[in-house]
Amino acid sequence: MKVGFIGLGRMGAAMATNLLKAGHEVAVWNRSPDKADALVQAGARRAASPRDAAEAAVVMSMLADDAAVEAVVHGADGILDAPALHVSHSTISIALAERLAADHAGRAGYVSAPVFGRPAAAEAGKLFVVAAGATDHLDRCAPLLDAVSQRVFRIGETPSAANLVKLSGNFMIMSAVEALAEAMTLAEKGGVARETLLAVLTGTLFGAPVYQTYGEILAQDRFRPAGFSAPLGLKDMNLVDAAATASQVPMPLLGVVRDHLRAAIAQEGEDIDWAGVALAVRRGAGIG
Amino acid sequence: MKVGFIGLGRMGAAMATNLLKAGHEVAVWNRSPDKADALVQAGARRAASPRDAAEAAVVMSMLADDAAVEAVVHGADGILDAPALHVSHSTISIALAERLAADHAGRAGYVSAPVFGRPAAAEAGKLFVVAAGATDHLDRCAPLLDAVSQRVFRIGETPSAANLVKLSGNFMIMSAVEALAEAMTLAEKGGVARETLLAVLTGTLFGAPVYQTYGEILAQDRFRPAGFSAPLGLKDMNLVDAAATASQVPMPLLGVVRDHLRAAIAQEGEDIDWAGVALAVRRGAGIG
Amino acid sequence: MKVGFIGLGRMGAAMATNLLKAGHEVAVWNRSPDKADALVQAGARRAASPRDAAEAAVVMSMLADDAAVEAVVHGADGILDAPALHVSHSTISIALAERLAADHAGRAGYVSAPVFGRPAAAEAGKLFVVAAGATDHLDRCAPLLDAVSQRVFRIGETPSAANLVKLSGNFMIMSAVEALAEAMTLAEKGGVARETLLAVLTGTLFGAPVYQTYGEILAQDRFRPAGFSAPLGLKDMNLVDAAATASQVPMPLLGVVRDHLRAAIAQEGEDIDWAGVALAVRRGAGIG
Amino acid sequence: MKVGFIGLGRMGAAMATNLLKAGHEVAVWNRSPDKADALVQAGARRAASPRDAAEAAVVMSMLADDAAVEAVVHGADGILDAPALHVSHSTISIALAERLAADHAGRAGYVSAPVFGRPAAAEAGKLFVVAAGATDHLDRCAPLLDAVSQRVFRIGETPSAANLVKLSGNFMIMSAVEALAEAMTLAEKGGVARETLLAVLTGTLFGAPVYQTYGEILAQDRFRPAGFSAPLGLKDMNLVDAAATASQVPMPLLGVVRDHLRAAIAQEGEDIDWAGVALAVRRGAGIG
Repeated sequence: MKVGFIGLGRMGAAMATNLLKAGHEVAVWNRSPDKADALVQAGARRAASPRDAAEAAVVMSMLADDAAVEAVVHGADGILDAPALHVSHSTISIALAERLAADHAGRAGYVSAPVFGRPAAAEAGKLFVVAAGATDHLDRCAPLLDAVSQRVFRIGETPSAANLVKLSGNFMIMSAVEALAEAMTLAEKGGVARETLLAVLTGTLFGAPVYQTYGEILAQDRFRPAGFSAPLGLKDMNLVDAAATASQVPMPLLGVVRDHLRAAIAQEGEDIDWAGVALAVRRGAGIG
Repeated sequence: MKVGFIGLGRMGAAMATNLLKAGHEVAVWNRSPDKADALVQAGARRAASPRDAAEAAVVMSMLADDAAVEAVVHGADGILDAPALHVSHSTISIALAERLAADHAGRAGYVSAPVFGRPAAAEAGKLFVVAAGATDHLDRCAPLLDAVSQRVFRIGETPSAANLVKLSGNFMIMSAVEALAEAMTLAEKGGVARETLLAVLTGTLFGAPVYQTYGEILAQDRFRPAGFSAPLGLKDMNLVDAAATASQVPMPLLGVVRDHLRAAIAQEGEDIDWAGVALAVRRGAGIG
Repeated sequence: MKVGFIGLGRMGAAMATNLLKAGHEVAVWNRSPDKADALVQAGARRAASPRDAAEAAVVMSMLADDAAVEAVVHGADGILDAPALHVSHSTISIALAERLAADHAGRAGYVSAPVFGRPAAAEAGKLFVVAAGATDHLDRCAPLLDAVSQRVFRIGETPSAANLVKLSGNFMIMSAVEALAEAMTLAEKGGVARETLLAVLTGTLFGAPVYQTYGEILAQDRFRPAGFSAPLGLKDMNLVDAAATASQVPMPLLGVVRDHLRAAIAQEGEDIDWAGVALAVRRGAGIG
Repeated sequence: MKVGFIGLGRMGAAMATNLLKAGHEVAVWNRSPDKADALVQAGARRAASPRDAAEAAVVMSMLADDAAVEAVVHGADGILDAPALHVSHSTISIALAERLAADHAGRAGYVSAPVFGRPAAAEAGKLFVVAAGATDHLDRCAPLLDAVSQRVFRIGETPSAANLVKLSGNFMIMSAVEALAEAMTLAEKGGVARETLLAVLTGTLFGAPVYQTYGEILAQDRFRPAGFSAPLGLKDMNLVDAAATASQVPMPLLGVVRDHLRAAIAQEGEDIDWAGVALAVRRGAGIG
């Protein structure tokens, strides 16, 4: 299929590479053009603008935040009026997702398709995709989503619902990290090694990737280099907070993780992993 | 082996039954004697007192709270000076576990062996046991622990460490329930069905029993009859809180779940499941 | 002095009236022009635009939110290039206050002068003003601030500092309300009337207007009509939250009040007073 | 009047001294007898036991905690069956206050009369007393309460209600300290001096002793020597927590202050003032 890909950070570049490997005809664009070099070498076309990349059946975008997505859609040479169905993978606010769905109505169409997975999963084509939009739009981009993921969850016709699920998932991750951090700190001050507690947890009711992955990070204090930095984590939790304000949902656990992300950044600096909330928890207990 | 079993509630009765099935010679005692009838019918000896039940190589106890354990150990006809190694399965305070270890020193010995699992798991012999105590004590009761569980975690020589791990595990369960409750409420008010969110979560990073079991309870509002009641859950969280005070560990997430347990009991009554914190979360968002 | 006044809601109209009474020559402007009628009757000049109102020595603005202030400053016929010193009384974000100070630099100047006080205090000329800006600017507008207030606090040369103090003050008010709400609910469920607790508190260490005013509101359940509505309160607390994120300051008490404001709005509707967080607290305890 | 006084710490000694000054005939007792020396020198009788001190019309007690009160009432030579009306000034649990009222029924009577005020206020006879009990009991001890205080609040016939009000008051103090700590930290990181913020607060809506006293402590970092230590503060907050559990009242702000007291003790040591929660708040923001 003829497809454009906009946003070639570590996640986006890996996804575009997998589209090429799957045999699709890919045009790529990135604000800093040098990020496109490797993909062009690998067979992609270098697009001159977002609009140029969207001269395709589908244009996929994977960008850092609301502002970047706004610029690519509504900015100069933006994709809004292009012939391509827009599949947006970025983690953005519910409000923007709703606005994008409205803006694309009567045009080529819009699908929200945020992903779960760290860069390594993106490179392996093992992301999870949560997709929402009109059924025929979802059908149209299905082969592309399959090419970048191990599984696609279709969750209905309202695009922003996929963003809400994505944000909820990130909140669930931080909640599990917070719980682990508090329990491990209690255990450690009580004379039980973090690894010991973790082995029991993952060997019983908590045998899920979220506990295994983050449990090891916490047990071994592996917070640098960051797999996903605390400032990015806080950005996402702020998006959850905005959704909670819009829907009037009290979320005290969200408050706890936001405060600990602020503490981790204030105490450790911006390069700390978002799991570094554990350091703030430990410091609160006087063992940091 | 000749073994005594004290405390024949639903959990204890199931465990004693599995000891019988495994071929052990079991004497049973319960404060309300009729709870022993079925086991006597199945081949157990009816002990006249805790002390009588402890005329054995090992005496196991599975009781409701600190007071019940105190009574069985230090009360009239208590087991403190009996010849049996005491294996305590009850969920008790760290402070009592430490005191019991000290009290049994120089006597027949003490092992803390709290369990994870609901009554159905106890009946199937599928509990998880977390055991701590002197190695020779752990060796001596090993066949008995195997008879009641699918797996035994040995975590060292300090008995109270096992209680700390047990309490931490219960805190982790409530934390996962709280996280699910907040995320599901946010999702539902934003137009995403609870089941939809749950399917994505358990299909991606959250494929652990804790999310599957409690996720279904929350998605289907199955809070009665209680598998584990909110007042018992609050009792356990208060034990965690006492440990946190003793070790000076701030645990804001613990504070959140304790407040929601109080709310659930105040709003719903004492017969609500501890997962009923989700009802308090929903009510806070105006959809209760 | 020749002065313009922009924004004639209940607060602004009262302030402009007091300027007239003090003998100043006042031009007034409001987006809905009929709000100016009474003031024109009382001797004010009806300005044709914000820019027209700012043909003066000083132009004061008292508007609802960031967007309204932006429109008046940077919009069509905005005041940015007018000859008048801009004295901004609105409760706005720190970020906007910083931007406004920068934008007015090299022009006629900018002072942040947010106020404490409900409409009745504004009518009586009994507001408190917190003012920050260049000393000569503060000197120039001093007679005007005196005319609308019982006291002016000068807190330095950085305008946004005044906004930070204002937001902190509103946070302190909500914190006192939250504390009263929790204590009164505990007292009431324990058999002590709210009025009884309040009398002891205000008769001892808590004899300040914030406890007297809000204590009576809570003791008597006077949440409608709202003196200051919960949605406006939440808006302000969100501004505090944004400042806390920008400065990386964990504020768990802020999290508590934001959650209870959300709960109050979700449960009671948008017309509830911000002190209605007490209803959410009571409901959490099953007595709502 | 013939009166006994039990418990001669800094608070109790000051109160007993004021009883002497008011012309009462005072017998004193303390577990460490040397604490009575100065009072005996000043004219008090040295009692041989609590029971001996209670050979009087009224016996007042001012002790450290539940255990100390239990010992004096129910221990060897305890006062339970003495002829004196027991007036209990100690800060104790609601549960113990209820038990004491029941235990004294049909005997000489019981009044709960906890006090507000630091040692300096006790020395000046400027305490506030919150008193509850039977009217004739309150009448009988009225001259004594007047001798130690600037004001007595009678709040009804149920003694434990006075303890509930006292605990609620201490919770209100810690809530004000927490609010000040968060606001001052936000202000300071935003470039506003703590003193500046405090001057505006106490000059406007927050002109109460609680903000003046603790505001200065926080502004000047005067946390040692402790006027009231963090461990004692945590003990009191734990009593509030127990009352909240008994009445099923969610109190998230209580959770915040308990966590910060734990943090202050863990980070600073047991000699820190309870207002030292501010240090934990600052440390959380990376400026500790």
